[in-house]
Parts: sequence; structure tokens; C-alpha cells
Amino acid sequence: MSNSYGTLFKIATFGESHGPAIGVILEGCPAGLEIDEAFIQQELDRRKPGQSKITTQRKEDDIFKILSGVFEGRSTGTPIAIVIENQDQRSKDYSHIAETFRPSHADYTYEAKYGNRDYRGGGRSSARETAARVAAGAIAKLLLKKYGVEIQAFVSQVGDIQAPHYTNLDLSKTEDNIIRCPDAVTAEKMIALIDQIRLDRDTIGGIVTCVIKNTPVGLGEPVFDKLHAELGKAMLSINAVKGFEYGSGFEGVTLRGSQHNDEFYNEGGKIRTKTNHSGGIQGGISNGEDIYCNVAFKPVATIMQDQASVDKHGNESTVSGKGRHDPCVVPRAVPIVEAMAALVLADFLLRARSSKL
Amino acid sequence: MSNSYGTLFKIATFGESHGPAIGVILEGCPAGLEIDEAFIQQELDRRKPGQSKITTQRKEDDIFKILSGVFEGRSTGTPIAIVIENQDQRSKDYSHIAETFRPSHADYTYEAKYGNRDYRGGGRSSARETAARVAAGAIAKLLLKKYGVEIQAFVSQVGDIQAPHYTNLDLSKTEDNIIRCPDAVTAEKMIALIDQIRLDRDTIGGIVTCVIKNTPVGLGEPVFDKLHAELGKAMLSINAVKGFEYGSGFEGVTLRGSQHNDEFYNEGGKIRTKTNHSGGIQGGISNGEDIYCNVAFKPVATIMQDQASVDKHGNESTVSGKGRHDPCVVPRAVPIVEAMAALVLADFLLRARSSKL
Amino acid sequence: MSNSYGTLFKIATFGESHGPAIGVILEGCPAGLEIDEAFIQQELDRRKPGQSKITTQRKEDDIFKILSGVFEGRSTGTPIAIVIENQDQRSKDYSHIAETFRPSHADYTYEAKYGNRDYRGGGRSSARETAARVAAGAIAKLLLKKYGVEIQAFVSQVGDIQAPHYTNLDLSKTEDNIIRCPDAVTAEKMIALIDQIRLDRDTIGGIVTCVIKNTPVGLGEPVFDKLHAELGKAMLSINAVKGFEYGSGFEGVTLRGSQHNDEFYNEGGKIRTKTNHSGGIQGGISNGEDIYCNVAFKPVATIMQDQASVDKHGNESTVSGKGRHDPCVVPRAVPIVEAMAALVLADFLLRARSSKL
Amino acid sequence: MSNSYGTLFKIATFGESHGPAIGVILEGCPAGLEIDEAFIQQELDRRKPGQSKITTQRKEDDIFKILSGVFEGRSTGTPIAIVIENQDQRSKDYSHIAETFRPSHADYTYEAKYGNRDYRGGGRSSARETAARVAAGAIAKLLLKKYGVEIQAFVSQVGDIQAPHYTNLDLSKTEDNIIRCPDAVTAEKMIALIDQIRLDRDTIGGIVTCVIKNTPVGLGEPVFDKLHAELGKAMLSINAVKGFEYGSGFEGVTLRGSQHNDEFYNEGGKIRTKTNHSGGIQGGISNGEDIYCNVAFKPVATIMQDQASVDKHGNESTVSGKGRHDPCVVPRAVPIVEAMAALVLADFLLRARSSKL
Repeated sequence: MSNSYGTLFKIATFGESHGPAIGVILEGCPAGLEIDEAFIQQELDRRKPGQSKITTQRKEDDIFKILSGVFEGRSTGTPIAIVIENQDQRSKDYSHIAETFRPSHADYTYEAKYGNRDYRGGGRSSARETAARVAAGAIAKLLLKKYGVEIQAFVSQVGDIQAPHYTNLDLSKTEDNIIRCPDAVTAEKMIALIDQIRLDRDTIGGIVTCVIKNTPVGLGEPVFDKLHAELGKAMLSINAVKGFEYGSGFEGVTLRGSQHNDEFYNEGGKIRTKTNHSGGIQGGISNGEDIYCNVAFKPVATIMQDQASVDKHGNESTVSGKGRHDPCVVPRAVPIVEAMAALVLADFLLRARSSKL
Repeated sequence: MSNSYGTLFKIATFGESHGPAIGVILEGCPAGLEIDEAFIQQELDRRKPGQSKITTQRKEDDIFKILSGVFEGRSTGTPIAIVIENQDQRSKDYSHIAETFRPSHADYTYEAKYGNRDYRGGGRSSARETAARVAAGAIAKLLLKKYGVEIQAFVSQVGDIQAPHYTNLDLSKTEDNIIRCPDAVTAEKMIALIDQIRLDRDTIGGIVTCVIKNTPVGLGEPVFDKLHAELGKAMLSINAVKGFEYGSGFEGVTLRGSQHNDEFYNEGGKIRTKTNHSGGIQGGISNGEDIYCNVAFKPVATIMQDQASVDKHGNESTVSGKGRHDPCVVPRAVPIVEAMAALVLADFLLRARSSKL
Repeated sequence: MSNSYGTLFKIATFGESHGPAIGVILEGCPAGLEIDEAFIQQELDRRKPGQSKITTQRKEDDIFKILSGVFEGRSTGTPIAIVIENQDQRSKDYSHIAETFRPSHADYTYEAKYGNRDYRGGGRSSARETAARVAAGAIAKLLLKKYGVEIQAFVSQVGDIQAPHYTNLDLSKTEDNIIRCPDAVTAEKMIALIDQIRLDRDTIGGIVTCVIKNTPVGLGEPVFDKLHAELGKAMLSINAVKGFEYGSGFEGVTLRGSQHNDEFYNEGGKIRTKTNHSGGIQGGISNGEDIYCNVAFKPVATIMQDQASVDKHGNESTVSGKGRHDPCVVPRAVPIVEAMAALVLADFLLRARSSKL
Repeated sequence: MSNSYGTLFKIATFGESHGPAIGVILEGCPAGLEIDEAFIQQELDRRKPGQSKITTQRKEDDIFKILSGVFEGRSTGTPIAIVIENQDQRSKDYSHIAETFRPSHADYTYEAKYGNRDYRGGGRSSARETAARVAAGAIAKLLLKKYGVEIQAFVSQVGDIQAPHYTNLDLSKTEDNIIRCPDAVTAEKMIALIDQIRLDRDTIGGIVTCVIKNTPVGLGEPVFDKLHAELGKAMLSINAVKGFEYGSGFEGVTLRGSQHNDEFYNEGGKIRTKTNHSGGIQGGISNGEDIYCNVAFKPVATIMQDQASVDKHGNESTVSGKGRHDPCVVPRAVPIVEAMAALVLADFLLRARSSKL
């Protein structure tokens, strides 16, 4: 099992949905960084359940505790361990799946791979694990802020409802509504759709767009650890993600080179591109333009409807969602996407220090 | 720079487009595998330039030589080094870009990151490097064959022209035409489009679909090295790739959970799913169903037209493609996509050996 | 900073001497292993301070808590997180070194490398961190036990006092005395020496010998991760270690090949060696004979005497040990050496699963 | 199998003793380094066989070729591949060991681990592989030279004959004699001993001491990748090495803390230690003083005498050395020890770039 991520700025996460705690060890954070605990909590609050009517009603305050690596408010270069205790565990909500595999969940594959599993709340496969990523990602953001890098994600699609392209949006408005779409009109439609889906005891998918501004030129490590390849892996490692594209993405395949190429020009001594189909990355290395990418989330697998399945003995069975679940993950996925982007960028920032003599 | 990939079955590649040679060291191939050299050459031939009228006319025979790791026809467990000499180098074709950055190429970002660069043919950023991946991927395929795993990629889209879904295709026909699309009618349209594009001195993008059959249940290492996350990274590390999706992918976001979930059933003792929106992967682990994914390639950046740019001193300049280039990369990308898939699967196959006691 | 160790069976530790807690995440433990918590506690108890008159009188019960990775008494394949809270912290004992560098401690190098440091009790450089290794090592031992591997370390030298060669000792008697030397007579002399050293307000070095029996043939990954190379690194990573040798070690350099070579013979179908100068490892791979090695520990740096030093501003100063310290580390180092050996062996056990088809 | 070493400045080696070639890929060398090919050749010449009457008479010119990563005389940041063709292969010298295991060689353990092996000249287990390390180490030295770091190894012991402590030697005289001991009188005795041993058709062990001067303060990555722990692993990964110690080493265990501690003083603004039992490393991090270590080499396993053994079918057999072998490895081991030290230091130099903000 792989529970660590990153090369120099790297994390190892642990914890199951219904165990005593989840957490993360962050290795490689340079010494001397001011660790703003209020900011970390704020990021966790953006991800936590029970925020609004369109998210799960499960209550987890997600209060974190730093166990190491910070002294007198600053990072010391030693590993930063963060623990978040699990609180609102209704493990009995899950007794019905101890023996049965929920469709499109990881129950069957975990059972097959490991021979046993902590079935309560999905155990390790639960998206609860992403709280640990958000905590570490918050520290990555603090590091990136020192270099001017800004990461902003938002919900750009729910079901068929799409927001305009990010260049036509005011991203500072993302937190103005519960769906985290900076376009108020689109946001309302998305919320209404999710509300309806929830009443239908069903779920729906969506897309989170992530925009990274002011990235220094030169981040990314080709040929395998291209900036977008690591961003892609990081995003695809988030629960429920089915696709990743950056810059022109899948639509770019229909363009001609003469339309798609980004011509260079000199803007007051800075080399820039006139267009940005490249999405801020050329040859796997940042060129200083905005990096932007889309992350596709499938509809939540837990639905409040009967579904056919089999149990671990191979017998046919029926399973239905119980407990408290999100009808759509994208609003809560926004800070997770940002966290993963921050972890990737922070790692490349440090790795770039060895490019030249 | 990161030039190695994989955890147990891992490769390190080297070489520039116009240097003396490119190559790869493959570490971690289990001892005892029969190394079929003819098969490796056949895979290289599928990727090599000059295959047909719709690919670059550059001639490289891509004859490989194994320097180590094989004794009496079998792998010995020691690193397998493979070298491919560069032959048809017309480096003077590139003297015009020693000082100027080609739009949407890696010239500028390499220069900025490393301070100097081998500009001939794009140097390290050239897709020539992928020949090394194909050679190593061929060995991965030989290993996977032992376990019954089959990997088949094909061209599913060129510009706006799309092939039917893979489940409606006979993948054994992929090599029947020069575009590598198993649907003859679509193939002809694709070829005609590329031909026209080439005459227009332009380029076009496309999509390669990859299908992996008979994967054992249990491959993939959550939470970070989910099977699809590594597949995504591997594909996104290929030159010109802009997007990756698996299973229902981006289209899946518009579905409801009740439509998207794959119900389980028992097929003669084997647990199967009725549908396969999951794309053969649940919770980051293979479930035994077909794995399928789409890989989006942008239009080739080198076009035979004048484009505005700047040189390394910041002066405005004009640059146009010279030399011999592909109008569309997807036919030659098919074996590269397969190779990367094979490398990912082979690695997970070995990693899975430690899941249980 | 590197706080993780291992390739497949791997740990990441965290924590400072006087922070809230120390701990470890163990990744890669195969699923299905019975986790005997009493055994883990017993191992921690062997390392904990305050055990006897010849160890520090600092009191730490070192009660551990498993936060994840174990369900119904068995490992699940997910990361096992273990936390040990720090209890008996007298941080004020260390206020005198906030500004001054203790001779032969890590105070100066940490300050120079990181710019700031948690000076209390040595912070991260304290040997307290090894409790986390012992906890993880206990689980490694449980895994190894499944394969018959036994690891036994003991004190073979304190100052000039040496125990006989391990082949002349009954290692089951190691825990019979507080110095952990299985030879009663030697043990008494060692204890008397340490007692005297302590009264002299001084410290003394020693050697721990580690013997590993019943290792399966074939563990070790040449050419770089030779079994003894990893053992060496693991041991040298323990606080205060200055040297490592295995098999004939440094004495072997005086022998001739004709004396040193271990001739093979067939013992009832099993290939054995008549002598064992190789120390159970040939070409970096275990051959099934006993593995044995010596680990040299320098005298503890903290002495209850005035020593010349400089402070962080470069001014001359005087520093003397305060607080409660060990006059000799070797008795408490025995379980640490065993833990590191177990971590190395467990990792190689899993890695060996990929050697052959 | 592990054939790669290093974190940022890292190598992967390949090749068998009697295959077509051996070589190395060096990843992570910063761009812009002048690659002095004559210096690389000079280092290889120091290691090559056939240099003098006390080394093997096998002839290998060890001419290297750079295949990538260097453009117009400077490193480009891309992987540097170096190949050395094998020339003087008398493979038939080894036909007698195709079936039989040579005592204290790796024949048996490779056979057991991998099931098959290239027995010619020991295949991958041959010290021939270290030529690749020397080539990469030469580039590491070029990088270190930029930072003033100097690495000098020499033979300090052969059999019972010991040279004085390095602080009493003029290390610039190391290359003045064929044994590479800077003390002329001791050198003569060592040479005479080896000559006698050779006539006896036997072999003898020895010690190489390595001294590293002018290391910047702050290299080393505790807690696991302590500078001396990585040095130890690097040295122990060299063929025939049985022990490693640094600073006071094994002798240090007999000292008291009051004797062993290195007091600090201020030398014109630079913090120094009065003594250097620490061997230039405290808490796993360089403190700016000389780093020095001893590396113990066992007697060469191949002796020109009959020895008892068994064959791969378990039958008793007799085996004797054939071909051309070294009676003592230490003179040729000097550049190998230096190369490994250089690789370790270069890696830590780059890793240290991320310690602080």
C-alpha cells in the first residue's frame, strides 16, 4: 500500500474512517516557515462534513493537533506530525456491509487484495483520509505564499450545469456560496440540482477546476515527473476522481497546431505567451502563465436506493445506503483539490533548487 | 530531473534526440523471463518514424542492443540495459532554433530551468525518448503475458472524427491500417483528414484509447498509488498529452449514482459487475473487469508556418518548422501508450506480491 | 530531512524529545498479521529509561497507542500509526543550552543546518526518537517470526571489557542481567565499570552484537542494497553509533583468503558452510548461516563535568550536563539494534518476493 | 535487485563482468557543470586492472563513452549515460564454475535467489561493476570541487601492516607508489607482503581510509540518512567490504566521554572543535571538520588453491582459482572508495539546498 506522496516535500497519511484518529506526517518542510494554525483549521473547515444542506450531515469538527516539527511557531525542518481524532462515528451504520460489497465502492477490491478489511465507513478507502491531505496542503500553501504562488479551485460543473471559463470569473467569489462556484447564477442552478438529486435519494457528479497563478518559471521534472503528470496523479489519487486535463485538455485534440500553439512575446522583459492553451506548462515545466486544470468526479457511490450485489461468500444480496452521505462531492472537494495542487507545487519548488549549479 | 519510473519494476531512460544514442535501464525484472528480442524489435518498429505517409519521413531503424541482464535468453534479475543508436540526425535542421524558442515546445522552459540546452531536435524533450520506453515496455508485456494480461491501444479520435466505443470494436484489427483505428470506415476518414492537414502545413490532435484485459483482481496501491492514478501519471508523462480519463471519465460527471454504479453479480463463482463505468478499477484497485482509458494528445507543435516568437535575448523573431515532422502523433503514440500501461501494470503485479502474509 | 526508512516494509518516524508525542507510521506491513500489543509493549519496556541503576533515572512509561491499520487484532494492509506521548519532560533542565552548543552533541550542526531548533532535550536529535523504531521493529519481529527468523542482540563490550564470541554464549541469558550481556561474569564486570564511571560523572562506550538466525536464503538486493549495507546503514542511523562490521569484520583484514574462505558442504540436502567468516551474507545476499554484526557506540556525550564550548553568538562559554542521563547507552541500545535489524530483514523478506517469476 | 543509489544526485548502474558492456546513468547532476573527460578517464585508470605487479594482469582499458546529458562540454541537467565496453574477456576461464559454487563468492546466493545466473567472471557480482561507480563518482568530484570539497583515500592497512594516522601523513603522496599508501616505508612493507602472498597463491585483506576535507557545515539528513549512515552504506555496498567506522570508530568505545568529547572554540569567527573524535559529523550532519573513515576489505575470495565445495546439484566438488586475479584489492579500491564518498557528498550537497526557506 502506498500512503506517502512527494519527493522532497512529502507526506505520509494514516487512518481509517472509524478508527481512533487520522493524520499525516509532513517531511521536508524547510525550516523557518511560520506555521499559521488558524489557517490550517480554516482549510480543514472548508472540507469538513456538515457545512451546508448539500453536504453530508455527519458532524466532525476536525480539530487538529500538531505533535512535532514546530517550535515557537516555526517549522524546524523536522517532520511535522498532525493528528485529527475521529469523533462522530456511528459504526453500527455500517454493520450491514461487513459481509456485503457496496456497488462501485472499494469493498470488494480491498477484500480481495488484503483478505480482511475495516468495513466501518469504508475504512481506509473513505474520503475521510483526505482531511489529512488538507492539513498538510495548508502548510504547503503557507510555503507557496512566500513565493507568491496562489491556488484557487472552484466548482465548474455539476451534472450538466457548467460555469463559464475561469478567465471570465472572479475567483474571489468562490466562497460566497455553498457550492463554491464563483458565478452566482450558475451556483444557484447547481444547488437546486443537488437539492433535487438528494430528494431523489440519488447522487450526481461534477468537475472542480483548479487555477494556479504566479508559479515561478521552471517547476516540473521531466521526463517522468512532468508538472502536469504529477498534478494528474495527485488529483487522480483523490477519491471518486475519473479524469484530469490541463490547458486545452480533451477539447484541444480538435484544434489544429496553428490554432493551438501559444506564440511568445516580450512583455517588458518577461517572456509571455499570447494565448495559453498550454495551461502554463510546456514540456512538463511551468512557463509562468496560469496553470489550470479540470478534475472530474463521478457521482457518489452511496445512494439511498436498493441495489443488487453479492456478499463475501458469493451469495446474491441487496444493499442500500445508510448513514449520512454527500449527494455530490464537488463542494467539499474544492479544498482537497487545492491541497493536492499545493503539495505538488511545494515539492517541485524544492526540487527546482537543484536544477543548476 | 526525473528520468526514472516505477517502484519495483522500474526504468531509467537517457538520451537526446541528436546525441549518440538513447536507451533505458530496466531494474527489477524478475529472473527467469524469456526475453523475446524479435518481439521487442516489433514493438519498436510500431513506434519508429517513417512508417507511412501520415508520419514523419525521418528514418530511424531503431535497432536496439541489450547490454546486460539477459543470459542464455532469460532475464537474470540484474538490470537490463538497452541502447538504441541515433542514426538519421540532420542537426543542421535545428540551427535556426539554437537561439529562438519554438511556440508550444519546451525550448523556453528548458532554457529557463537549466540555463543551457541541447537544442538539436528538442534534445531531451523530444519524443524520441519514448523509444526507450517502448523497448522496456515490451519486456513488461512479456512479463504480463505470463499472467494472461493483454494490453491493446488504438486511435479513437483524430480532430473531430471519433471511432465507436471499444466494446463495439474488434481490437485485433488495429494494425490493419496506418492510423491504427480498428474501425475501417473511421480509419479512412481519419487518414484523409491527416492528409489534408499535412498539405495545409498544419497539425491536428487526437485520442488514443487503451484497453487492458484479464488484469488479476487486486492490482493498485491506494491511497496515493491508485492504479488509475499511476496510469494517469504514466500517460501524462508522454509528450503532447493533455488529458487522461478512465472508465466513465469526464462524461461520468453527468450521470446519477443510480445510473453509474456497477452492480455486482456472481458469474460461476467469479464476482463480476453488470456494467463497467468503473473502468475495471474500484478504490484504486483492479476488480478484474476491463480497464479502459482515454489519452488526449494535442496537435503537434511543429507546423510548417511562420509563427511569432522571441529569442533567448528577448528579441521578437519568427520561427517556422523545418525538418521532417508528424502531422498527427496518435498513430505512433499507440505503442507508446501500450508501453506505459505495461510498465504500470508490471510494477503493480510485483508490488501486489506483498499485500498479504 | 529524512525520517523514513525502508522500501516495501517502511517506516516514517516523528517527534521531539520534549514535544507532545513521538510516533511512527509503518507502511507496507502485509495484511493478516496478528498484532500482539503486549509484545510491542514488552519491547518498548526493554528500551525505556529508568530500568535500572545503570540507566538514566528519567521516567517514561512509553505507553503506546495504535491509531490505525489494525482491525480485530490483525493488520489490514493499511498504514499502522503508533503514538507514544511524552510524559516526564523537565524542559527547564535544558534552558541552559538554548544558546550554547554541547560538545559532541548535534546542537551546533542542527542550528547551522536549519537556522532554528527545538533545544529541549536535544529535540529531534534525542535518542528518544528510537522508541518509535522499537515499536515498529516489534511488528517487524512479529512478521519475521512467521518465517522462523530470530533476532538476538546483546552487549559484547563496555569500555575494555569484552564478552566471549557469540558462538560460545547462551543468548537466552541476555535478559538475565541489567547490562544485557549473556555471560554472567563479564556482565558483572561491565556493571561495576559503569557504576564507577557514573560516580566519576563520566560516560563510557560499548559494543552491541546482533545475531540473526534462520534467515531464509536469498535476502538482500545487490549491488547497492546489499543485506549488510542496509544493516550497516540502519545501525549507523542509531544515535551514538560510530562503527559497523559483520562476519569477520575488521579482524578479517589480517587473514589470508585460504583462512577466511568458507568452504561449502552438503548437510542432508542443505548447502552449508563449514566456517562462517562471511557472517551469513555472500555477495550481499543471505546464505542461511547465522548473520552476526557488531555495532560500536561512543561514550554518551552528556557528562556531569564542565566543558569548554561556544554559544550561538560565537562567545566562549562553559557547559555541563544537567538532567538525567545514561552513563553508557549499550544496555538500552540492545532492543534498538534488534529493532533496526528486524526492520531491515522484514523489508528484504518482502522485496525478495519479486526476485523470480 | 537494487542498482540505483542516491536521492537527488543519483546513479543506476548496469552490466556484467563478461557481457558486452557495463555503464551508468547519472541523474540529477545540476546543469552547467563542466564535464572534464580527461579527469573521468584518469579516475578510471586508477581503478583499472593490470596497473602493476600487485594487481590482476587482466587487461581492460576501460575507455568510456558519454551517450547523453552533456552538450558543448557542459552538463545540461538531463541524465548522463556512460558506457564502458568489456574487452579482455576470457569467459572460458570460468566454465569450471558454471556448475560449482566458489567458496565465499556470490555464486551460491545468486543461484538460490534468482534461479539462474551469468557465471562468467561472477557476472553482476563482479567488482567490475565498480568501474561504473568510478565514472559517475568522477563527475561527483567535479561538482564537489566547485564547493571546495576534497576527497582523498589511501591504503592504511594490509594484513597486519598499518600506516600511521592520517593526520601524520602527506596525502599528496598517495599516488607515489603502487599500493597507494602515502607513507613510503609502510608502502614498501605492504608491497612486499602482497608479493609474498601472491607467490603463496593466496590473498590478503586490508583497510582503505578516506578523508574528506572542506565539507560545508550542514550536510547530512537525520534521522535515517545521517551523513555517516549513508557513507557507511555506500562503502559497505562495495565488493568485499566487511566493516566501516568513522571518527573514533571502534576504538572510541574504550574512551570516556570526558576524553572523547570534542570541545568547541571560535577560530576567527568560525566554530571549530579542538579535537575531532566526531570525525567531522555530529548528529549525522557535517560540522566542517575533516570527515574520515575506515573501510575494511576481506581477503579476495579467489585463491589459486584447491578448496572443497559443492555443485548446484549438491554434489561435493573441488574448486580452484583460474584466470587472473588480485592478491589484494585495496590498491584498486582506493578510487572506488573515493567515488562512493563523492557520490554521497554530492547528493547531500543538493539535498541541503532544501533545509531552509
